Amino acid sequence: MDKKYIVLLTDFGNDFYVGQMKGVMKNICKNAEIIDLTHNINPQNVLQAAIIIDVSYKYFPKKSIFVCVVDPLVGSNRKIILVKKEGYIFLAPDNGLLTKIISCDAKIYKVVNNRYFLKNQISYTFHGRDIFAPVAGFLARGIKIEKICKRIDKKEINYIYFPKVEIKRYKNKTYFFGKYLFSDNFGNIITNLKIFKGNLDKFFLYVYYRNKLYYKLKLKHFYSEVKKDELLALINSFNYIEIAKNCGDAYKEFLKKFKDFSQINFVLVKNG
Amino acid sequence: MDKKYIVLLTDFGNDFYVGQMKGVMKNICKNAEIIDLTHNINPQNVLQAAIIIDVSYKYFPKKSIFVCVVDPLVGSNRKIILVKKEGYIFLAPDNGLLTKIISCDAKIYKVVNNRYFLKNQISYTFHGRDIFAPVAGFLARGIKIEKICKRIDKKEINYIYFPKVEIKRYKNKTYFFGKYLFSDNFGNIITNLKIFKGNLDKFFLYVYYRNKLYYKLKLKHFYSEVKKDELLALINSFNYIEIAKNCGDAYKEFLKKFKDFSQINFVLVKNG
Amino acid sequence: MDKKYIVLLTDFGNDFYVGQMKGVMKNICKNAEIIDLTHNINPQNVLQAAIIIDVSYKYFPKKSIFVCVVDPLVGSNRKIILVKKEGYIFLAPDNGLLTKIISCDAKIYKVVNNRYFLKNQISYTFHGRDIFAPVAGFLARGIKIEKICKRIDKKEINYIYFPKVEIKRYKNKTYFFGKYLFSDNFGNIITNLKIFKGNLDKFFLYVYYRNKLYYKLKLKHFYSEVKKDELLALINSFNYIEIAKNCGDAYKEFLKKFKDFSQINFVLVKNG
Repeated sequence: MDKKYIVLLTDFGNDFYVGQMKGVMKNICKNAEIIDLTHNINPQNVLQAAIIIDVSYKYFPKKSIFVCVVDPLVGSNRKIILVKKEGYIFLAPDNGLLTKIISCDAKIYKVVNNRYFLKNQISYTFHGRDIFAPVAGFLARGIKIEKICKRIDKKEINYIYFPKVEIKRYKNKTYFFGKYLFSDNFGNIITNLKIFKGNLDKFFLYVYYRNKLYYKLKLKHFYSEVKKDELLALINSFNYIEIAKNCGDAYKEFLKKFKDFSQINFVLVKNG
Repeated sequence: MDKKYIVLLTDFGNDFYVGQMKGVMKNICKNAEIIDLTHNINPQNVLQAAIIIDVSYKYFPKKSIFVCVVDPLVGSNRKIILVKKEGYIFLAPDNGLLTKIISCDAKIYKVVNNRYFLKNQISYTFHGRDIFAPVAGFLARGIKIEKICKRIDKKEINYIYFPKVEIKRYKNKTYFFGKYLFSDNFGNIITNLKIFKGNLDKFFLYVYYRNKLYYKLKLKHFYSEVKKDELLALINSFNYIEIAKNCGDAYKEFLKKFKDFSQINFVLVKNG
Repeated sequence: MDKKYIVLLTDFGNDFYVGQMKGVMKNICKNAEIIDLTHNINPQNVLQAAIIIDVSYKYFPKKSIFVCVVDPLVGSNRKIILVKKEGYIFLAPDNGLLTKIISCDAKIYKVVNNRYFLKNQISYTFHGRDIFAPVAGFLARGIKIEKICKRIDKKEINYIYFPKVEIKRYKNKTYFFGKYLFSDNFGNIITNLKIFKGNLDKFFLYVYYRNKLYYKLKLKHFYSEVKKDELLALINSFNYIEIAKNCGDAYKEFLKKFKDFSQINFVLVKNG
């Protein structure tokens, strides 16, 4: 039989919760191979999860089943949805986590058949183990989606709002106004400014906090283009503009200066 | 041949120690599949490990071999024990980690045959790699327990004390006096109060610190039943009562108020 | 076909970067089994990575492919090298990470053939995913090293400097002068002092900071040989001398006293 991959994305960190999920899945489908995409989503940060699943899924083999559990409303009557797209399957709570995955060619379902849930013990607070894991296990074992789910319409599910980049032109310059999204383990600061075309030399990134200018950064390709401990801006490996410190931690530097990261304005300026 | 699962529970965190153990096991048994239950036990916290193995093992396939290494006495003459129960195998140092696993139907052994240890190099401080990993590897490869171990009696091993819940009745109310156990990655605070029957509306959880009342919390089913950043109490996914903050971190809030968590008293009150 | 192991060592922490690498590798070679050695190298700490790969590789099955990505110069024109030794394969950036692996019997190569890189999308900042992962995947799939790499000479690659232990004899005593290397998850402090022969009773470890003596520690075999919360020195599981606190965290204690760990002098004294 074809090998099936189950790929996990959660905000569970290093605790034993992920281990319990793996036990449940292996109990149902011994041949499934489980891969951790990450369990390091900031607790309850649906937006971060939505971006990371979007920039990651294409690296995995077709037919992979993505189990995405960032689920602050667990236990309430929020739905669990399944999305089929480009040969991949995505499971997530209906909280907008799959907003960027939904597209014209996506089929959307609602998980309904509790015959495929964990027996006798659906907890209120850990559907990752009691519903998501067994459903993923049964899908990996070859149970048809239609046996577990009911087809629904795009309009029946929830979406999240991503902060939009505003663009303004003024005196032969173009201004892109961006916001903070999240930071990574290296302390790289990821903004919602995305890839663009053109010569990097024409760009500068200004960092404002409550209308005061703090940094004017050149746009570079890689970290060691600036001196050690110097800040820079670059287009990162998933095509977002990030601020980094060569051999250092930009996030820690920002923490010292800025109390509320939602008040930071990242202004990308293009000359000409 | 049947696939064998080796499930790891340690306090080693993210360091390379777990990786070395996996190398040793794979060297001995290529077919063994290794699953991380957790490596995030607080350093040397045998009590936490004892609870987590107890509430987790049933989710794994029968015949799984659990390797539990929280081992402050490593290098001393403490025994290593093997427990066989319900078709599962458990390896652990003889420090009480398996206290909750031991029951009438459990067979207990002592690991004795150093032919199945790592050759030429038993370190004093890393029996996880030098003894536990190779023994688990050989068990997964089909070596009989009796070749590696010697049967011993229940009375020959060590147990740990779990803080008991005191129960008092007074004027038509029942009081359950509980203590702090540990917290998880979300900042949920897990107490030793366990599941009980009855209508949740009849219960309140009082949190005292050195005889001063700090919180009076309703018992709820799930996090989003209270407002954002509000504290609540609930029965968690492994049937202990925990205190959580909806979309927040209860542990961080407690840290600001309470210096010594062993001085917190959790008093569950049932009306009627 | 023979099972192939790909073993990962990075400074990527718990983020999704490692997950993306695993997706890429599985896409190329379904049969490869991926093992995490560690992703907890301190960011950009090539020296720590060089030591950990050296003390770990022998525990893994022969033919394992080690993918070592601690790569502060990613995106620049630094080479990626492959080293073949004792039946193992090592991939790393040419920054000295493999210094301790290189020996007379090692064959050294440079990764050159971009046919085996990720298609259409080599980022500047994530060669782990775009070059290392696919190259490892193709090697696991059986592609010959010579198809991907070009043989080069030992003199064509970079090495790092490891702080040397100075040894002095004075009045019937021998003094070994050591330095701080890194600490682990338990707070054990690992020095560059290595194993030696002789009766432990003859040794003491003195800890100086800026020429002031702070600790005089006995050399012991294991943690619980001293009282709870007492510091000790011991030869650890990979044969370096470390300072530990029984049931405690030596690193945290050092942090309170010493601002700059590079200023600590560890002086091992042997009587007679």
